[in-house]
Amino acid sequence: MKDIPLEEKLRKLESLRADLHNRDFLLTWEHSLAEIRSILLMAECLQALYSAGRSLRLFDTGLAVSIFRDQSTRTRFSFASAAAALGLNVSDLDEAKSQIAHGETVRETAVMISFLADVIGIRDDIYLGEGNRSMREFAAALQEGYERGVLAQRPAVINLQCDIDHPTQTLADLMHLERRFGGLAGLRGKKFVISWAYSPSYGKPLSVPQGLVGLLTRFGLDVTLAYPEGYDLLSDVVELAGKQAAESGGTFRVSHDMAEAFDGAEIVYPKSWAPMQVARRRTELLRKADQAGLKNLEKECLAENARHKSWHCDEALMKRTAAGSALYMHCLPADISGVSCPQGEVSRDIFERYRLETYREASWKPFVIAALIVLTRVPNPAAALRRLVEAAAPRIR
Amino acid sequence: MKDIPLEEKLRKLESLRADLHNRDFLLTWEHSLAEIRSILLMAECLQALYSAGRSLRLFDTGLAVSIFRDQSTRTRFSFASAAAALGLNVSDLDEAKSQIAHGETVRETAVMISFLADVIGIRDDIYLGEGNRSMREFAAALQEGYERGVLAQRPAVINLQCDIDHPTQTLADLMHLERRFGGLAGLRGKKFVISWAYSPSYGKPLSVPQGLVGLLTRFGLDVTLAYPEGYDLLSDVVELAGKQAAESGGTFRVSHDMAEAFDGAEIVYPKSWAPMQVARRRTELLRKADQAGLKNLEKECLAENARHKSWHCDEALMKRTAAGSALYMHCLPADISGVSCPQGEVSRDIFERYRLETYREASWKPFVIAALIVLTRVPNPAAALRRLVEAAAPRIR
Amino acid sequence: MKDIPLEEKLRKLESLRADLHNRDFLLTWEHSLAEIRSILLMAECLQALYSAGRSLRLFDTGLAVSIFRDQSTRTRFSFASAAAALGLNVSDLDEAKSQIAHGETVRETAVMISFLADVIGIRDDIYLGEGNRSMREFAAALQEGYERGVLAQRPAVINLQCDIDHPTQTLADLMHLERRFGGLAGLRGKKFVISWAYSPSYGKPLSVPQGLVGLLTRFGLDVTLAYPEGYDLLSDVVELAGKQAAESGGTFRVSHDMAEAFDGAEIVYPKSWAPMQVARRRTELLRKADQAGLKNLEKECLAENARHKSWHCDEALMKRTAAGSALYMHCLPADISGVSCPQGEVSRDIFERYRLETYREASWKPFVIAALIVLTRVPNPAAALRRLVEAAAPRIR
Repeated sequence: MKDIPLEEKLRKLESLRADLHNRDFLLTWEHSLAEIRSILLMAECLQALYSAGRSLRLFDTGLAVSIFRDQSTRTRFSFASAAAALGLNVSDLDEAKSQIAHGETVRETAVMISFLADVIGIRDDIYLGEGNRSMREFAAALQEGYERGVLAQRPAVINLQCDIDHPTQTLADLMHLERRFGGLAGLRGKKFVISWAYSPSYGKPLSVPQGLVGLLTRFGLDVTLAYPEGYDLLSDVVELAGKQAAESGGTFRVSHDMAEAFDGAEIVYPKSWAPMQVARRRTELLRKADQAGLKNLEKECLAENARHKSWHCDEALMKRTAAGSALYMHCLPADISGVSCPQGEVSRDIFERYRLETYREASWKPFVIAALIVLTRVPNPAAALRRLVEAAAPRIR
Repeated sequence: MKDIPLEEKLRKLESLRADLHNRDFLLTWEHSLAEIRSILLMAECLQALYSAGRSLRLFDTGLAVSIFRDQSTRTRFSFASAAAALGLNVSDLDEAKSQIAHGETVRETAVMISFLADVIGIRDDIYLGEGNRSMREFAAALQEGYERGVLAQRPAVINLQCDIDHPTQTLADLMHLERRFGGLAGLRGKKFVISWAYSPSYGKPLSVPQGLVGLLTRFGLDVTLAYPEGYDLLSDVVELAGKQAAESGGTFRVSHDMAEAFDGAEIVYPKSWAPMQVARRRTELLRKADQAGLKNLEKECLAENARHKSWHCDEALMKRTAAGSALYMHCLPADISGVSCPQGEVSRDIFERYRLETYREASWKPFVIAALIVLTRVPNPAAALRRLVEAAAPRIR
Repeated sequence: MKDIPLEEKLRKLESLRADLHNRDFLLTWEHSLAEIRSILLMAECLQALYSAGRSLRLFDTGLAVSIFRDQSTRTRFSFASAAAALGLNVSDLDEAKSQIAHGETVRETAVMISFLADVIGIRDDIYLGEGNRSMREFAAALQEGYERGVLAQRPAVINLQCDIDHPTQTLADLMHLERRFGGLAGLRGKKFVISWAYSPSYGKPLSVPQGLVGLLTRFGLDVTLAYPEGYDLLSDVVELAGKQAAESGGTFRVSHDMAEAFDGAEIVYPKSWAPMQVARRRTELLRKADQAGLKNLEKECLAENARHKSWHCDEALMKRTAAGSALYMHCLPADISGVSCPQGEVSRDIFERYRLETYREASWKPFVIAALIVLTRVPNPAAALRRLVEAAAPRIR
């Protein structure tokens, strides 16, 4: 097995002096650029080692816990894959099978499942205003338990999608862009469009578009957020995006015209979401378990969505992008016209053209999650990686 | 990493000459004091190693199977955590997904899931008169399979709560007491009260109070079992408790007055349970799937419970305990007045005062389960632990 | 620990020059005799090592994914046990918890769960004409992903029962026969009967009888397929069985008389199944979610089944077999008269006489699955096994 040349990356990692040890990862914009860069570097190293057939076992034993309060395929498997690759067992807290309905509080549950846990991955994206807050409550309980000697270690809480951000998705997106445009520096001045697109469904989380504008505006891109009037994101995040763009030497603007937004774009990310106001009303109705109200809201929203069927990523629109060949991105699954629904976010031919590219985009997520686990749980990550490189242990013996 | 001084504990373990290898753990009182002490010693050693960041891997590979016939959070995660820490994978037998409804017998299922299994943890606490019996049937099938050469090894069956006992809970409770009172010897003459307490629910298992009087009466404590008239436990267990108390130099008595019971108590464990007669009727109704009957029984029981709302662990009651500061214990989740229900087992302020103590109490459970796995499955446990100490392998590499 | 003499088997394995690396296992008859023999040899080696207490860890880390579109106990645990024994974590794709209903296509899902996966085990046996086809679609997506650089490795797809074949069951059956009759050569000329038997249920898959005639006719046995008129299997498989029997020097015939079929039989496998025509109609009704139609079909089929209650494996029938003591086999769970149903496939006394034999038969399945994983995923399996033998690492340290 030939040597894997990671030394340069590991030195760069060390020079960044980012310290995520014993910390959580809940919103990308709470973390310094050095920390974000460290995550990308670590994910690249892990991917290089895995692809070369090397073992990534950094834990002799240990436990990764997942909590999914919404459906998931790729994030669930990314988390399970990352944990397994590092040597951790995975245990899922299936709340239907637990006694949480019996009156356990979040903070009690947090400690009860963490006595021997290394990392807790949480998806909690349905209730606007609650998901991220609940993760913080969870993390605070772990911190208290650790400080008061109840927990022998401080498990990291990793956001696997909340009401505000979807950091493991957007970091995977960023890695895909980095690879496609020759490094982060290559992204400066690139025209990126995250656009609402029509879907015959409602209630899709705001976390992906919010997470994208909250992350990509930090890297000097010219970011356009396009959506029909009324389909607003959380204003805090939009304001932050503007501020970050200015600081990074990029730009950020909002457009209400998909076609205009696509003009000259180098990267397009057309994706449906529920307007923030709808997400808020839906949250209230869900909390009241108001089934009739939810039905009405869905009907109303689908009717409103249907007024914007022209927000459709097709050949005509793609022709307006730079050289007619912008990079198409999606977090998957996409609503593909004539495939998964009669009309959706993207035409069949466009999706098919970029299908394997979207798979490559998704392929980074397990390594982003693995990087987060390593950086939050391994005391000296660069040294640990160096030992992995030197050991040169094949994953399959 | 500094040396972990376990040699004294390991010599003590060896001197006890308890042999749990190839055995099950179904009721604490079926096991000698030497065996119980061995479990505590092993759990302490494993906890010390884990807290020092050492790997507890005693299995290169292997499988732990869990079967939960009732909801669980902390026991489920304790089992998964213990198994993972020792190097075992965990597989849950979800009976809804299995063919058990298709006519598999208990003894067939037992063998079918055990060809490569090391330990089977079972929770089966809903049907009075059945849970523990079914575990024995399961274990007998494994024994037959092992003796007849169908199984290459004899998996241990570990009771994760049945209709009679909850040994991993009560052993964790005992470890908590041992730590708080300076060793088992420090428990002699200590006044321990396990008391029924009001809860706006019904059907809670008898296993915790029964398990507590069945275990703690063996260590010379003065044990009081307090409950409103009619809320009886299984008479066999109560008789046994009396006999054991006499043998151990302690005392055992029943009280029907919570306040009187608390007078001068050094440890209090206020917890709701369903009277044995109710558990019996409920079992019959469940067996007949008599939904109307179950509804009626619940209504009747809740009304009866409501007559005993004064059985509430609050400041006034705690003031009557020794120095007003008895150790409060609970297996969790507690029904906390004004938190998880309008009125429950314990007042908010009392629970909050002891909250972290109850977490510490719970923190022993993964190590109790790990100790049971090691003692039942590892041929020479003390020698194996010594090798772990000497290897000094960090859990996180 | 004494040496495990596997060298002869490993040399034989090498001499077969079968190469299953980077391949799938979907139907036994797609694989050469050399490949089938290699699987048996590998399974024997793994079983010998496991029984001797040796570690089978061939993966330092890795992931095995299971997808069960029907209930399962023994295959589920066989897969989980095999994966765990080799050092892999197991993750189950529970489609109810995934976003598959949200419009993910099979090929997208295949890639999304496989970025770090080593093996995908699939049970998909409900829809006639679809299960095996869907596995091929899945495998083709993995192949594309691997060839296009999206996947760093090519996970193996292993058929854990489809509409056509149940290869891990029939290979375990073959290993049981091999052990009972002194090797594969000992099976030449042996009279084997796979017979339909009455069951008060309907809708049992055709995969076991089809798989048996599709596999055993290759080893020179005299195979009789017995069933009441109308309970046909897929004609392709039956034709293949005839052709294979002729080639292997054995025979294959169909009988519509259970008693006659049992005359002089040395091995009998009485088992219920739904006629192919019923399976086809059921598939159509399921696809249309036609509940009334399904009810009617069930009623009609149960009535038809009831006309064949005499197809019952009892003492009288067994007396007709060779020396009155044919080897009874079953894939389990059997419908046992007076045990799991009033009247079923086999009488209580016959089943009890062979019960432990059926457990032994089942005990090979984990090793067959482990052998398939090793042969499809480990580059040089014989060399890897030799290293395991030499390392002599105990599974329990």
